[in-house]
Formats: sequence, structure tokens, C-alpha cells
Amino acid sequence: MNQKFEVAIIGGGVIGCSIAYYLAKEKMNVALFEGNQIGSKSTSAAGGMLGAHSECDGDFEVFFPFARSSQYAYSQLKEELNHLSGFDIGYRKGGILKLAYNESDRNGLRSILSQPTVKWLDKEAVREREPDVSSNLLGAAYMKDDVNVMPIAVCQAFAKSAQILGASLFEFSPVLDIQKKDNSFLIQTATSHVEAKHVVVANGVWSTTFFKQLGLDHQLTPVKGECLSVIDEKATLKHTIFHDHYYIVPRNNGRLVIGATMIENDWNERVSLSGMDTLIAKAKTMLPTVADMKLDSFWAGLRPQTFDQKPFIGHHPEEEGILFATGHYRNGILLAPATGQMIRDLILKRQIKNEWVEAFKIDRRQPLLLRR
Amino acid sequence: MNQKFEVAIIGGGVIGCSIAYYLAKEKMNVALFEGNQIGSKSTSAAGGMLGAHSECDGDFEVFFPFARSSQYAYSQLKEELNHLSGFDIGYRKGGILKLAYNESDRNGLRSILSQPTVKWLDKEAVREREPDVSSNLLGAAYMKDDVNVMPIAVCQAFAKSAQILGASLFEFSPVLDIQKKDNSFLIQTATSHVEAKHVVVANGVWSTTFFKQLGLDHQLTPVKGECLSVIDEKATLKHTIFHDHYYIVPRNNGRLVIGATMIENDWNERVSLSGMDTLIAKAKTMLPTVADMKLDSFWAGLRPQTFDQKPFIGHHPEEEGILFATGHYRNGILLAPATGQMIRDLILKRQIKNEWVEAFKIDRRQPLLLRR
Amino acid sequence: MNQKFEVAIIGGGVIGCSIAYYLAKEKMNVALFEGNQIGSKSTSAAGGMLGAHSECDGDFEVFFPFARSSQYAYSQLKEELNHLSGFDIGYRKGGILKLAYNESDRNGLRSILSQPTVKWLDKEAVREREPDVSSNLLGAAYMKDDVNVMPIAVCQAFAKSAQILGASLFEFSPVLDIQKKDNSFLIQTATSHVEAKHVVVANGVWSTTFFKQLGLDHQLTPVKGECLSVIDEKATLKHTIFHDHYYIVPRNNGRLVIGATMIENDWNERVSLSGMDTLIAKAKTMLPTVADMKLDSFWAGLRPQTFDQKPFIGHHPEEEGILFATGHYRNGILLAPATGQMIRDLILKRQIKNEWVEAFKIDRRQPLLLRR
Amino acid sequence: MNQKFEVAIIGGGVIGCSIAYYLAKEKMNVALFEGNQIGSKSTSAAGGMLGAHSECDGDFEVFFPFARSSQYAYSQLKEELNHLSGFDIGYRKGGILKLAYNESDRNGLRSILSQPTVKWLDKEAVREREPDVSSNLLGAAYMKDDVNVMPIAVCQAFAKSAQILGASLFEFSPVLDIQKKDNSFLIQTATSHVEAKHVVVANGVWSTTFFKQLGLDHQLTPVKGECLSVIDEKATLKHTIFHDHYYIVPRNNGRLVIGATMIENDWNERVSLSGMDTLIAKAKTMLPTVADMKLDSFWAGLRPQTFDQKPFIGHHPEEEGILFATGHYRNGILLAPATGQMIRDLILKRQIKNEWVEAFKIDRRQPLLLRR
Repeated sequence: MNQKFEVAIIGGGVIGCSIAYYLAKEKMNVALFEGNQIGSKSTSAAGGMLGAHSECDGDFEVFFPFARSSQYAYSQLKEELNHLSGFDIGYRKGGILKLAYNESDRNGLRSILSQPTVKWLDKEAVREREPDVSSNLLGAAYMKDDVNVMPIAVCQAFAKSAQILGASLFEFSPVLDIQKKDNSFLIQTATSHVEAKHVVVANGVWSTTFFKQLGLDHQLTPVKGECLSVIDEKATLKHTIFHDHYYIVPRNNGRLVIGATMIENDWNERVSLSGMDTLIAKAKTMLPTVADMKLDSFWAGLRPQTFDQKPFIGHHPEEEGILFATGHYRNGILLAPATGQMIRDLILKRQIKNEWVEAFKIDRRQPLLLRR
Repeated sequence: MNQKFEVAIIGGGVIGCSIAYYLAKEKMNVALFEGNQIGSKSTSAAGGMLGAHSECDGDFEVFFPFARSSQYAYSQLKEELNHLSGFDIGYRKGGILKLAYNESDRNGLRSILSQPTVKWLDKEAVREREPDVSSNLLGAAYMKDDVNVMPIAVCQAFAKSAQILGASLFEFSPVLDIQKKDNSFLIQTATSHVEAKHVVVANGVWSTTFFKQLGLDHQLTPVKGECLSVIDEKATLKHTIFHDHYYIVPRNNGRLVIGATMIENDWNERVSLSGMDTLIAKAKTMLPTVADMKLDSFWAGLRPQTFDQKPFIGHHPEEEGILFATGHYRNGILLAPATGQMIRDLILKRQIKNEWVEAFKIDRRQPLLLRR
Repeated sequence: MNQKFEVAIIGGGVIGCSIAYYLAKEKMNVALFEGNQIGSKSTSAAGGMLGAHSECDGDFEVFFPFARSSQYAYSQLKEELNHLSGFDIGYRKGGILKLAYNESDRNGLRSILSQPTVKWLDKEAVREREPDVSSNLLGAAYMKDDVNVMPIAVCQAFAKSAQILGASLFEFSPVLDIQKKDNSFLIQTATSHVEAKHVVVANGVWSTTFFKQLGLDHQLTPVKGECLSVIDEKATLKHTIFHDHYYIVPRNNGRLVIGATMIENDWNERVSLSGMDTLIAKAKTMLPTVADMKLDSFWAGLRPQTFDQKPFIGHHPEEEGILFATGHYRNGILLAPATGQMIRDLILKRQIKNEWVEAFKIDRRQPLLLRR
Repeated sequence: MNQKFEVAIIGGGVIGCSIAYYLAKEKMNVALFEGNQIGSKSTSAAGGMLGAHSECDGDFEVFFPFARSSQYAYSQLKEELNHLSGFDIGYRKGGILKLAYNESDRNGLRSILSQPTVKWLDKEAVREREPDVSSNLLGAAYMKDDVNVMPIAVCQAFAKSAQILGASLFEFSPVLDIQKKDNSFLIQTATSHVEAKHVVVANGVWSTTFFKQLGLDHQLTPVKGECLSVIDEKATLKHTIFHDHYYIVPRNNGRLVIGATMIENDWNERVSLSGMDTLIAKAKTMLPTVADMKLDSFWAGLRPQTFDQKPFIGHHPEEEGILFATGHYRNGILLAPATGQMIRDLILKRQIKNEWVEAFKIDRRQPLLLRR
């Protein structure tokens, strides 16, 4: 095989598949390369909260509008992707309750509470909605627009829809090398050679590999997240509850997902006993009745963390044909649609909000590395 | 524990759970006993077609209207159960194509084609809708109202909704003995004794046990059905296709379910190599491109078959407090709502169509056994 | 089917399969009925320690010699069963260290330490053998003869060997009813009727059902045990370690099994979050390095507990053709060979140690129930 | 991390782990890098036959003695590795029957039958040993020394033993780049940089990547092999049976492994329906009773094929510090010990049979590529 494509995407997680989808919709000739199976790594490990509010730590100027636009895109994607691919992405309303146990917690919520879409509920109001939540609460910030989806279903629905629209997907095809050749790039995988005008690096924490190959000295740090799921026989929980980076998400199959630990620099994709221990302790604090629930499953994934915990989305500083869409840290599922749209617009040279370009460009802080 | 209930249901498959749901909605005090886990036996093995038309072999007077009313109930249940329990039952439109390879097949479809909701498509029309279907076709009967659901999700959604409405569910609680005591019944399980005014026997092919205990000489024959699922990477199939009791059902998770063999009197719930062989051969005949698809999973379940392949739904001939809801053969998922409603109406002494009562009563043919 | 057998065994766990094996070796015509799959319930949940010493709480007159004879039988069975069936039962030496953290623990070990096969190791000697064991130890009782096996492999090896020697095994065949008929018994299963001279009730905690049917007022209480396994990448542990009914068993596939909780009267065969929590806490106390190990799997099973925690092995008090072999509590795997041999000897009217007959007969304490 | 090692091994399959083991035994300071988990790719998909005879197609001068020496090594490794690591490698005798259905098949066996360790059995003699084998046979070549092992257990036992002897194992650590630096090599993984005097490329079909990086124009072709396993309830089979590259291997857990298809240039590691179809058809031809056996599992792996189907074992033609141990095609498990020993001897500059060096060197045919 020695095919030519307009765009080659490296990485078949939710980011890469969203990009493939939005480009295929524009009739671009797209190829996506995934070393393993579509959505089988960090994507499948995600909780699936679309926490535009709950994950926003104070940046209401740039990050929040970007996240909101992405969250909003999902409300349309659920029909659009189902229509095309037959997939159900498990879009589930309910909202998120960000719990406060004390005044300090409440202060931490102050900025988010200033948003019109968020309101403070005191303990009684929280427990009216969720009677089994801890009685040690002060109250909670209620973000009614923060919904959740099934991450693996989102990713596979993007992939299949892209394919139906003409994209070429290559699973079990790790990309080994990218070489410039005249005005395009030669991509060598374990299985083939292809040529592409544009290359998008979108393989999460493993993108670091290509940074160096492409003359950049950037780093992504893995932050391992461990999760477990339990069987909620009594339909205890209606809302996602959230405290201190931990969450309990109710799914539309009767399960609660409890996540997630934050282990920096651990590349091992298995769950440790100490991680389980932490998750159980934290879950019991938020929702004491989980202690009696039955364990269903457990898993882990690696979040790609940048220096400022914002993603890298944009062109290579010197090589316009190369683009990055990685480093989404805790927010890959949430930001996938907006990232896909932004990469599409960059490639098609459409207008994009300048503050997003500036905020997410890869060279926003670090100087360029001298080329080899 | 020695609790009292108005109704005790034996069996936590889709039939028992539907009954529990419809009774709990009427504020009846209901207990359901399942020897294993909710929905873990035949229910979880079902394909999930709501084939009111495709499974109807000519009985348009009684069986078909009953099946249609049940099929129709699903279109409301999908919201109702989701609202109550948070479950998504995977309701998926698309319709069923019952294939005809030759005139003899076409003749077999004649009676169904007389229904106004069914139409004949010739080969070109079929392949316009489903380009990958076998080119050896003559055509197909298209039943656009025959949709599909996820059986295990339906069953768990009924169960959890019933529980939320006040029903008591006991998993891992096989019922061992039913004894009459004054005006009610003592039910002994491996784990408890309870008392109930009404007892509903709804545990599929294993109901035979209770027939004998209850003075009836009826038999249910197991008809094992083996299935497999494959990954349909290219979203080949939009409709369920069906021929000669075999089917390929597209699911909303990118899988195709291929079913099902018909092995009489085999109680072994595992899949045999010869069953796989048959399924693959049959699937290739219907949809040649399945040969390249990747195997995802395989499983089997036991259909409970009565002498005339119609279910037993109704009172014990001599003991009004005992009811039966079993023997649903290939149609447990399809008929679950109508069965739940009928049992509810029998217990609450509401009006029911007399022809349904007559068609499904357990003593419609066989004489009573002398009591022990 | 209406076959005749000399012996019908109810229950395809390790006890029933051992009995089938020892009877088949004597050319008895044996049938075994299992409601599910061979070895799929409590047997598969067991840790597999052959803890003749470690599980013996002071009864050195009767229980200990019985347990030792059974433990000894395994040293021969490993070859015998492998030769017949091709199965490897995973017999693994190493011995058990019963840990003492303080003088009170040590006192609890006094009686076992009086045995010539057990010796006291002080902290240094323990940590020389097992460097990663807790440094808070006082020492440990070392029982070098207490080895371990793979329970499911033992059970399947017994079953297959019995079958090769002529026994008939019926899986997916729950026994529903036992009726006396002249000099034999009619056994009705969901799938068939058979006749047998002798019936052995050996289905663990579910045997209670038959007690009542057979005129006995005995009870078995389920004591749920939850377990987990971890990947011991560094081959940390050579010996089984044990404290306060919890244990960590190294397996010959690089896993450590951590067990087991003791939850009375819980029939639910799933693992609870609180059970996981307890196991992790306990394991960290014994072997702090487990915290970093990776979780592999988790499961639970129901131990059948009698009033005095000794099994019921012997004839029905009034009906010689009925025998019991159940209630093995924590010791099913350990006692399976000796139980199989004892039932064989009772049926064949061979000589048996009288103190074993007396200690294990079902009516050793409770009076008979009046027959229905 | 920036550690220095004497040897860095790329690939944690059975070949890499064997090399790590034999080097660690010599107290070499070894690091092994595996992109996924130890033994999780082609190794775990192998059948585990040690078919020195059955896989030998006529090369009795060089390949056969090499394979025999490796097969012989296993008879010692089983104790050695168990003693060190606690692992049981599932070494199982029984021998292999290479079936002949007709004279043409028999002619194909002529050369192997000339070996003193192989004998011809006519149909009656075959069916005396294996009564259920096809009755269409002419006879079989019986290779009594060809035994089998559990591939994943062998690999993990090598890995853990190596670790106990001091080797460093890095899972989830794909190697991205090898750079020469003075007299050693810099190895960059996704997770670290290390320095090593010697680098051994041993990652199967994915080794091609490094060939090019290291200036070689060699290719490994993937030949996908699909397998399934069934439950042999009746212990039908004692010997491995083999015909036309297909085999049925009895395992010591009551399963039969049926393998394997030969799909060239397919990198997709999933099992296709057509593969299942082929395996079932082939298995029924060899052992008709498999049709009734129950399916247990299915899987696939990629065999690395060289131009002449012999492995590449030896030094880089120009760069002595780089070694190759890959391309073992159908014989990775069989040849792992001999390969580990040969790489050890090459690094330690011990004497090796010259014909092995010549037969397996990577430049035995192809010219060198010009360096980039």
C-alpha cells in the first residue's frame, strides 16, 4: 500500500476519531492510524462526564467557553452520530453536584458559582435530590448542564461515522516515523507507507515520541487514573457527584463509575491495590451506601498532562503541515468535539477565535528545540 | 425473615420482571425471587427482536394482536423505564427483512404479506436498502414496525423500576417449595420463608418443576439457542435480516448478533462447535460479508417450548391464587410487556380479551393430573 | 431417560466429585447431578490451602487426623489424577506461616505448636524466609506440610477421572425431588428421572433444601467469603501467610490470592466494596508490599457452616440409603479426599474409624424432625 | 531514569524473556522493554507444541538439531523455572501424531520417518491410541518426544526468574529509538532513556521497525494464526494431532486447543468468522467428535515470517553491539531456549556451532542497505 491522503491522523482515541469525523464531513480524504484498537486506551478508561463547569478551575475567559461549546456540540452529536452509525453514545442528563463539606470547600466553588448556569444547594436541598449522599455536607454547587456519555461509544461512533463518510481507518497500525517529502509527509507504520499533506498527532500521552522526532522539546506526563464500577441495585444516584477530583457517575446500565486516582508518571496501565483502597475510601465519604454495593469491574488509563494542564491544539510552530491535538489531561471526552472542529478549521483555514489559538498552541511557553 | 406479600413471582427473567413492574405500578406489594442474578439466563441470551410480524406464523386472530400490543407497549416503555430507572433499553428502529431466496420461501411469506404493515420488496429494493445482502435473493418481506431492544437492559430496567416503585427483589434465592396455607401460600426459598396471596410461576423452562408440585402434568421442552456476535466495522447492516428462524440483528454498539440454533431437549447452556458451524454457514448465506468480520462473543440460552409453542399465561385451573407466565419459546422479550399486563389484569380482576385467556390458559388441551 | 444407578450424588463441587471418583474406582455405577457447571460455585471460590494444621483449632483427637489423612491423600492424587485425566491440580509446596503479631496471637498458636510437624519461627527467621512480611511481627508458626492446590483443577480432575472410570456426570441438572420407592430412590431433576440405591447429598449450603425434604430439621448457614487476586511481579511470596482467618496464597501462575471475608447469612455471591476494603486492609497488614501490586480478579463463594463447624458426613439417621457429605465450611478442598473415601467406605460397608463416624454424623446433636 | 545496562532487550515475548533469563543467569546486567504486558501478544496465542519433529520440514542438518536442543532444554527448564519462580510451565508429554489420510500425505512424512525417534503407526495402531480420531486415516507418524507446554506460563516464568536473578523488566515501555553513542547505545522508550552496551531486537513481527532504523532492508511478514479452544469433557485426546499445519493440542486443564490458520499480511489481531469456519471444518476432519464439544475461547496472534521461514539470530552485520532474535515464525515457543542460549553465547563470545551462526544470521541472503 502506498496511498495518498489529505490528512493523516495519528491516534484512534476519542480526539483522533473526532477529528476524522469532522474532516470526513467536509469530504476531506482522511486516514487514521491506531496502534491498537479504536478507543482501547485512555478513552475507554474515562468516566465520561461532560464537566464543562465541574472541571473548570477558574479560567472563564478561554477554557470555559471552549469547553461549553464542546459540551453543547454533544447535544447534537447524539442524534447525528446515531443516525449515521447506529451507535448510541449513552448521553445522560442529570447534572453534576460538586460537593462541599466545609467552608474551605465552599470557597473553592466560589468562582464557578458566579456562573449563571450554576447554583448553590444547601445540604437539605442536596439530600432532597440525593438522599444517600453523605450527611456531613455543607452543600453543593449544582451544574445542571454537566451531563455524561459513554466514552467508548462516543469514540466508536465517531470512528464508524467517519468511515461511512469516507475516512480510512487503520487499526493495529502504530506509526513509526514521519518524514517530510517536498510538500507532504511520508508516514511509515508497522504495516504500510502513506503520504499525506497534513499530519495530526493525536495519540495522547504517547505523542511525546513525535514531539522529539518533529524537533520539539515538549513533554506530556502520564497521570494514571484508576476507576472501578459497582452495581447500584437500588438506583441510588441520579446525579454525578464530585469532590476533590473524585467522582461517582451513574450510568444508563445500572452501574456507578467511581473514579479516579491521579498517579503522576506511572505508565503501568493496571490498577493497584492502593488505588482501589483510595477509591473505596473516597466513595464511602461521598456516598456511604456504596459500601454495600457489589463490585462490577475495574480499569485504568493514562491522562496526558501538559505543563499548564491545557491541551496542545494547533500547528507545529515551523511546519504548518503538522498539527497537534493532544494533552487533554482530564478532559479528553469533554473537549473532543471542539478539538475536532478546531483542527478542521485550522486545516481548512477557516476563522477561529484567536484566544483559543493562542491558549492552546504548543509553543505558548516553551522555546523551540534546535532541529536535529 | 418471614414477610407477607400480595404477590410472589418466581423467576427474575424478562417475564417475571415485567410482571413485577406492572404490579408495582398498581401499588401491589410484590416480591420477586430469582435463583441466580436478574436476567442472567435465557433473557440475556435473546436476540432482542420485537418480531411481532416476523415471528408470527399465521395466527393473525389471537397471537398476532397480542404480540402487536406488546410491541407497541415498548415504544412507551423506553421512556418510562428510562425516566424511572436511568436505564436505556436500547430501542432501535430499522425494521426486519424476512428474506426469500426462492418461490417456496415467498409462498411461506404470503400470509404475513397480507398484513397492511408488511410489504414485499424485490431483490433490487432489498439491496438498495442493504447492499451487502446475498445476491441470490428473490426479495424480502419488509416489516418496518419490527424493531429491536437490548434484552438484558429491558429486564434490568423492569427490575429496577419495580424496585423503585416498592417491589422487593431477591436474587440468589431459588424457590424450593410452595405450600398452600389457608388462603395464601408459603414459599420456601434457599434463603427465606415468605407468605403470599398470589404466586406467579415465571421461570421459563425450569417452571416444569412447579407444574408437578402443583398437580399439573404439563411439560416445557428446552430448545437451546446458540448465538454469536461480530464487530461490524463498516456499519454494513441497518435492518435485522431473517431467514428460516435465523437472524442477524444490528445492535447500537456496532455489533451484529447472529442467532440462533434450535436444539431440542439440550439443557447444556454452553455453545457447541457444531452450533457455531451452523450459525456461520447460515450467516454467510444471508450476508456474505460477515465472513470477514471479527468474532466478538458467543453464548446460549434455553427457550421454554410448550406443546403448541404458545405461552402459558393464566390461572391454575383449580387454584386461583397460582398463576403461570411461562413457555414463551422464541418470544419472551417481545411478549414480556403484554404478559406483565395480562397477569396484572388477572390478579386485579380487570377485563381481559377472552380469546387471549382461552388461547394461553395452561389447561387448553391437557387434562388435569390427579393431585398427589 | 430413566436410568438406574447404584449411587446418585447431588452436587458437582469438590466434595461430590471426590465421592464420584472414589466410588467409580471401585467400579460402582455412579451418577452425579450438578445444577450448574462442575466446580462453578463455592469450589471455584476457595483459596486452595490444604491447611490441616492451620485450620485446626485445637481438635487434635478427631478432626486433625481426618484432615491430615486427607492432606496426605493429595500427595498421591496429584499423580493419579494427572495420569488418568491429564489435569494438573496445581499442587504446590511451601508451607504456611501463621503469623503472630503479639503475645495474644502467640498464645492462640500454642496448641498447634505442640504438634511435632509445626515449629515456631521468631521474627528474624520469618523475615529470612519472607523478607517482605510485616515488620510488626513477633513470629509465626510454620507448618511446612500445609501446601496448596488449585481448587477448580482438583474438582475437574476428580470429575473427569470419575467419568473415565465409568461415572455419569450430568451438568445443568438441578435435583428437584427425591422420593423413596421400594428399596431405592427416585430422583427427579429438571432434565430427567433416575433411580438409585443410594443418594448422597453433597451440594454445600444448598443441601438444606434436602434436609427438610428428608425429614431433618438441620440448617446450614452460608458464610460468604470474598477474595481477590493480585499479580506478584517480583515473586515476593514463597509461603502462604495466614492471620486471623485471612490468608495470602501464592499460586503457580504468578498470582497471590488474598482471602477471605466471613459474612454470615449472605447468599449474594457477588463481592461488596466493603469486602474489598477489608481484604486490602488486612493484606497490607500482613504484607505491606501488596499495596503496589496490581489487581487481577475478584470473586466470592458461600461456605456451608454447621452448628459446630464440622461437616455432616454419614447416613441419614433412619434411612440408610441416604447419605450426607456437606457442611465443610472453610475446609471443603482440604477434606474432599477423606470425605470421598469415607462415603465410599460407608456405602461399601468397609471399616471406618468409629470416632469419625460419631464426630461427623448428622444427628450428633439435633433430634430428628417428625416426618411429614 | 537514566540507567546503564550491559544488555537491553526489546520485546517481552517468549524470545526476549528467554534471553533475559539466560543472560541474568550469567549475572549480566540486563534490561527488558515490553510495549505492553509480558507475553501478551504472539506468545500468548501460540499452541505450545514443542514440535521439533513435527515442524521440521526436511532440514535435518541444521534446523532440526537446533530445535531438538531447544526441546531438550525444556525438560530441564520445567524444574529450574518452577524452583526459581514458583511457575508451572505446563509441560505435558504425550507426543504428536502427524496424520496421513492418503499416500500423498504419507510421502510427505517420509523424511521425518527416517529419524530414529519417529515411527509409522498404521490406522489401527493410531486408533488404538486415539479411538476418536478420524476413521479415514491411512496412519500417522508418531513423534513421541514432541511434547507441549503452556506458552504464557513459559514466558512469565522466564521473565520472573530473570527478575529474581537481577534483570530489570519494564512493561508498558515501547522502545522508540536506538541511537549509537560512543561504544554503547542510547535507547529511548516512551517512559525513559537508558544506555546499553548491547541491544537485542526481539519483538517479533514488529522488529521490522528497527531493521530500517538500523540500516537493514529486511522484512518480516505477519502470518496471522487464529485459534480456538473447546472443553473436552470426556478426555478424548491424549496426543497432539497434526495435519497440514493444523493441530489439536490437549492441555492439562481439560481443554483442547485447535489451531491455527495462516493468513499472510494481516495485522489485525482479532479472529474472523471465516477463520473460525476453517478451524471447525479442519478439526472435524481430524477428530469428528469435536463437533459436540463446547466452545471455550478464541484468539489470534501474528507469527513473524522471514524470507526462508528460519529465524534471524545473530549480530548486526556491521554493528556488533546490535543483535537480532526474531522471525521465529511458527516456532517461537519451541526455539525460545536455544535462542536465549545462542544470544547469551554470542554476547559472551562463547563457542557456538558455526552452522547455526551461518544459518540464522540476518544477512544470509539480502545485501545491506545503505545507511541513512
